Amino acid sequence: MSDIWSVETKTLATNAEAVMRNGNIYQIANGYMGYRGTLDEYGRSELVAITLAGIFDRVGEAWREPVNAPNGGYTKIAVDGQALSTLTSSVSSHHQTLALRNAIFGRKTSFALGGKRVTIASERFLSAAEPHLGVIRYSISSDRDADIVLETGIDGDIWDLNGPHLPKLSAEMHGDTLVVAGITHEMGKCVAVAESAAIGFGLEHHRVDGNRNLRVVSFKAEAGKTYSFSKYFAVCTAADARDKTVPETAIAVVRMAKAQGFDLCLSAHNEVWAAKWAQSDVIIEGDDEAQHALRYSIFQLLIVAPVDGSGNSIPARALSGQVYKGAVFWDTEMFMFPFFLHTCPQKAAELLRYRIRTLDGARRKALTEGAGFRGAFYAWESQETGDDVCTYFNIGDPLTKRELRTHFRDKQVHISGDVAIAMWEYFKLTGDDSILLEGGAEVILECARFYYSYAYFKKEKNRYEILDVIGPDEYHERVNNNAFTNVVARTTFEIASQTALYLAETHPKAFKDLVQKIAITQELPLFAEAARLLFVPEPNPENGLIEQFDGYFSLRNVPVEELKSQRIHPDEYLGAGQGLAVPTQVIKQADVVMMLSLFKERYPTAIKRANWEYYEPRTEHGSSLSACAYAMVAAEFENLEFAYKYFLKTARLDLDAKYKVYVGTVFMSGSHPAANGGAWMTAVFGFGGVNANAEQVTISPRLYKSWRSLHFKLTYKGDSFDIHITHDSVAVMAEASNQQTRRFCIWGQTALSIPGKRVIIDRAEKVA
Amino acid sequence: MSDIWSVETKTLATNAEAVMRNGNIYQIANGYMGYRGTLDEYGRSELVAITLAGIFDRVGEAWREPVNAPNGGYTKIAVDGQALSTLTSSVSSHHQTLALRNAIFGRKTSFALGGKRVTIASERFLSAAEPHLGVIRYSISSDRDADIVLETGIDGDIWDLNGPHLPKLSAEMHGDTLVVAGITHEMGKCVAVAESAAIGFGLEHHRVDGNRNLRVVSFKAEAGKTYSFSKYFAVCTAADARDKTVPETAIAVVRMAKAQGFDLCLSAHNEVWAAKWAQSDVIIEGDDEAQHALRYSIFQLLIVAPVDGSGNSIPARALSGQVYKGAVFWDTEMFMFPFFLHTCPQKAAELLRYRIRTLDGARRKALTEGAGFRGAFYAWESQETGDDVCTYFNIGDPLTKRELRTHFRDKQVHISGDVAIAMWEYFKLTGDDSILLEGGAEVILECARFYYSYAYFKKEKNRYEILDVIGPDEYHERVNNNAFTNVVARTTFEIASQTALYLAETHPKAFKDLVQKIAITQELPLFAEAARLLFVPEPNPENGLIEQFDGYFSLRNVPVEELKSQRIHPDEYLGAGQGLAVPTQVIKQADVVMMLSLFKERYPTAIKRANWEYYEPRTEHGSSLSACAYAMVAAEFENLEFAYKYFLKTARLDLDAKYKVYVGTVFMSGSHPAANGGAWMTAVFGFGGVNANAEQVTISPRLYKSWRSLHFKLTYKGDSFDIHITHDSVAVMAEASNQQTRRFCIWGQTALSIPGKRVIIDRAEKVA
Repeated sequence: MSDIWSVETKTLATNAEAVMRNGNIYQIANGYMGYRGTLDEYGRSELVAITLAGIFDRVGEAWREPVNAPNGGYTKIAVDGQALSTLTSSVSSHHQTLALRNAIFGRKTSFALGGKRVTIASERFLSAAEPHLGVIRYSISSDRDADIVLETGIDGDIWDLNGPHLPKLSAEMHGDTLVVAGITHEMGKCVAVAESAAIGFGLEHHRVDGNRNLRVVSFKAEAGKTYSFSKYFAVCTAADARDKTVPETAIAVVRMAKAQGFDLCLSAHNEVWAAKWAQSDVIIEGDDEAQHALRYSIFQLLIVAPVDGSGNSIPARALSGQVYKGAVFWDTEMFMFPFFLHTCPQKAAELLRYRIRTLDGARRKALTEGAGFRGAFYAWESQETGDDVCTYFNIGDPLTKRELRTHFRDKQVHISGDVAIAMWEYFKLTGDDSILLEGGAEVILECARFYYSYAYFKKEKNRYEILDVIGPDEYHERVNNNAFTNVVARTTFEIASQTALYLAETHPKAFKDLVQKIAITQELPLFAEAARLLFVPEPNPENGLIEQFDGYFSLRNVPVEELKSQRIHPDEYLGAGQGLAVPTQVIKQADVVMMLSLFKERYPTAIKRANWEYYEPRTEHGSSLSACAYAMVAAEFENLEFAYKYFLKTARLDLDAKYKVYVGTVFMSGSHPAANGGAWMTAVFGFGGVNANAEQVTISPRLYKSWRSLHFKLTYKGDSFDIHITHDSVAVMAEASNQQTRRFCIWGQTALSIPGKRVIIDRAEKVA
Repeated sequence: MSDIWSVETKTLATNAEAVMRNGNIYQIANGYMGYRGTLDEYGRSELVAITLAGIFDRVGEAWREPVNAPNGGYTKIAVDGQALSTLTSSVSSHHQTLALRNAIFGRKTSFALGGKRVTIASERFLSAAEPHLGVIRYSISSDRDADIVLETGIDGDIWDLNGPHLPKLSAEMHGDTLVVAGITHEMGKCVAVAESAAIGFGLEHHRVDGNRNLRVVSFKAEAGKTYSFSKYFAVCTAADARDKTVPETAIAVVRMAKAQGFDLCLSAHNEVWAAKWAQSDVIIEGDDEAQHALRYSIFQLLIVAPVDGSGNSIPARALSGQVYKGAVFWDTEMFMFPFFLHTCPQKAAELLRYRIRTLDGARRKALTEGAGFRGAFYAWESQETGDDVCTYFNIGDPLTKRELRTHFRDKQVHISGDVAIAMWEYFKLTGDDSILLEGGAEVILECARFYYSYAYFKKEKNRYEILDVIGPDEYHERVNNNAFTNVVARTTFEIASQTALYLAETHPKAFKDLVQKIAITQELPLFAEAARLLFVPEPNPENGLIEQFDGYFSLRNVPVEELKSQRIHPDEYLGAGQGLAVPTQVIKQADVVMMLSLFKERYPTAIKRANWEYYEPRTEHGSSLSACAYAMVAAEFENLEFAYKYFLKTARLDLDAKYKVYVGTVFMSGSHPAANGGAWMTAVFGFGGVNANAEQVTISPRLYKSWRSLHFKLTYKGDSFDIHITHDSVAVMAEASNQQTRRFCIWGQTALSIPGKRVIIDRAEKVA
């Protein structure tokens, strides 16, 4: 295994599948862009991609997806007239690493060529200090004299799922800077990449080769001597260029970086990374495997956190490519947001700003979806405008080669409540009402309005119901009164009332402006009524079970494996109306258990256990969002073996990269930031037993047996705490700069955490 | 073509497909049983069936279906040691006929055998005077001397779709009567067939050959001489045997018939038939093809009308076999009932009694379907108990060989209203409240109660809605606010209020007992409210179009043929969630137009025309219920060419027997009594322009150009009228025995029809 601060391999990936998976595992990113873990000399067929956050394009009728930038990191050499490639040349050794501490990808490869051993090595990072910037150091050595031709520059011939998005690239040279620029199809947005390199050896000339803009350096390498150079590339788009043109902006970034040089760029980058880890690391003593997997998961979240002020969020496959259209799903609010909220609230705020920015898109969706609704119906798959890019026919059927009608877009209504709940959680746990005032309150009220217009009233039962939805379990479409959805909707109504109350009391002017703007005064009492009268499936008094939706318990109970054995094609989708799972109790992912995990204060432990034990054997875990929910709830009733197993499964998901690559005929390879967030939640909420609400932070640890301690930072109401949990004690160290004494409840005992002080609570004897 | 009182052919059917279709075309029936149009010597592989009304059985997990009786009509001969069969012997001529005047099937076949010409002839009828009885005359002749062995008796080796239902048959002889009896699987009900024959030649002995119970007669036939005999068989079941055992009842019927002899049996039969035609015939002068097809359609209805007092109804494939499980659908109330209501109300009453008898089944269904409802949710496919035998997986997918989940059973909620509307129509047009008092009022109130418990209230729109249904167009499942269904439901609420009012005023004791029995007092005001506030999609003021259901107009408009060309398999079902038609505007059958046809007084002609013109090109007419609805509405706005084309299509459906035999993997061959009823409705309501309501009978004729006159009987409020329509005048002759003067409105003029008098209204000049 790699050490606990890196991922590495000495196995060279040569087949397409392994190259694709390594591209995910070894990716680096800086929130602005992601750079897949491909080698310097790779091209489009090795799935090289520099995927940009927040800029999208559509070609013809194909799926709209994020734009990949031309690859400013391209470098290739030829030795004695022979091009070197790990895929075609004879490789005598290969080593590649990903440093988790500062997101540097490195590789070193030795080739055997006609008795010579030629070694290339490189490392690269996307600057955490300057979002547009990528920096690379590349070196070449040979054990004998050799004629070497180095080509480095910008490769415009890039991988796209549904491209090309920059159909006519221009390749130019501005002084010693190469520039490749193009215009997106749909909206005509410019994307430019500038590159500069400080090559201190050989003769350099410039060559444009199709979409490649290259500097070519020929030199005689002396035996044993290492030839190194640094190169810098910058990506800029019309979405972020300010005072200058897009290419000029990129050129300026590259020139500045080159002027600073590699070491200065690196130290600025490292400084940011040190701060990230200081805020976010979780240390598990006694279990290196768990430590490594968890750290890798946290790393994945840190590299894709949106740039401050960008108003971007995190897509379901982060910045690992264009899968899932680069779209933001509920994954962000439900699985990633808690990590940021508890460790780095300004990133959590950025995620919320994205939803505020896309509120109009959610309003448009509400008006046009189905029979038409009011309020905000957030997109199931959201890009920069908030309009839904989820297609009605979203999964290809391998049996008929037809597209299957799925209802993800029009019926997965819990998304609006997921957003509203995140808005409110932020306010509750940070005490910061700025997001509410920036538009968060408007979002919450519009989400409640949406649910009100979606709900129906059943007079003879004197209750509202939420009909015709999909809950988290996507195998059962168009169900009524899905427990998860109904609790989310009810909570949204409650939050809406609380939001109105809070604003009216503390920001009366803002409140008045808001209710006037969205003309909602008369509806506020209806939200309060709906919060009271919305039906929520409650636990059966006899066995504690909560029915996932009306009629679920009447479905056939078929073992998951038996069901899967009935498939005609291995990639056959099990849902979508006629899928094998539809008439059965087999569910794709945590649904009732997801609810128990999300609304943990609403249900006692015995209910959690009963439902967990009922639903777990019925769950396929066909979504990366499933295992962590089961793990967290299992930890609550101290089934720690299971919790640990599913924690590891979640935390190792992207590291092992053994996930399914196709669902139906849809390619879905890439990273899983929701699972990464789930891993963090399982560690901190599950094993750490942390549960913060507006009043206090509860810590009820249940460490896994092999863990000596769990040690992490927590941000709460703007204050910062260092939490150190062992099997016997919990220590809370409050930073000296904290503003207030905060209340903790540890193992049932209240502990006041005074700024600058440490408080330690020992575990009392367990009471049966 | 056959003459207008018969169907005949001189073409011998030899392949299985043609034998199957002829079995439908030439069937005879008497309401108690149907006898497929197969030849005397045929057996199970030629789909011989004597299908019984109202007795059902289920074997294992297969579909529950009506029981077929052992074939008491079996006769076969061998000549000079060679068995004769149209399928294997050399046939020199063949002629078979079905007499429509009295439902006699006849055949005459000459065989060429080693230089001899041997002719057999037979005719058979199922007595219209004695429901248990079948009578056959059979004759044999040879142009040269021949050794003949005649086998006649009961063939117990019968055709079943999901049998055998009488697994262990006993074959016995009681005196000169053969008896075969068996016990059904599921409920252990006895079914017995007795047979007797008066064979006046040859030596007879008795032989049991497996499930066959035979009399064997060997004789030397002299050249040119005809050997004839009569045989009688009787079918009886535990459902209808009264004083004696089942076999004894059958034996008694056969003995009585044999004692009377063929001619007396025939004249009793003919007398009943003469009365039927006197009441029901429709005479079209000037168009023999239409006349013949219409008469055949009326014939089909007359042969399957339930036996008085049986409490049976008419299955969707009548008594032509076990297709569709012998179940009663909405077809009966919506397509067959009007014929009986207007020509023979006591049969209409019998159909309603069936629904009264099965009310408890409808109550059980309401309680157990979906989330559970109150009131009466009638079975989509109803057998003797009213429990729904429609399966949730009702259509096999030829592509995957899997059963498709369809929602016919759980979502086609209009069935309850169809029943309630028929109950009320009967009362309105006969003036006879006995059916209401026998249980019809209870049915109506329970149907309204069902809709109330099914409906949801949308507070912000102050309206009730009917969600998640299938309308008549079965390709679009789980739709909201289907116009047809909502009008049916609203009408049911109105009828319920009217029923309560009528009973309270005229039968206060019965009303009190009823509301107490079903504890419905408090709900009556809710029905009145729902009648006011139930949303019904109304015509768009700009173009007059009524949206079939929420969102229909947003579906893709694809030409029907283009859609069908996309099928991978010709029998592929176009609906069921993922079918090709689902995302398109292609509909299986009349839906909005069905509504316009059913609720004809609710919509002006311009609206009918606009919707007809919009929906017709979008209709596949994939159901036999479709063409007649389009034909009737087309007649109303005087598109008579179309009306005529679709009238003929409907009326010739069973005669041509070119209908589809498979939908998905489901076998569905058989007769189409709903289309037969549709043909009558198109003639009388469509071309005749007859529309009766509680106040008067309106006649607004629009005869097809080639029709010189249309002449038929009409029963209205217990009185009988002879209506004679030409292009220029309408003559109404009231029978002398009529009780009252009745009001007619002919071509907009009021005409009073006085008992015993004729009134003639001439057509005024047409006003533009």
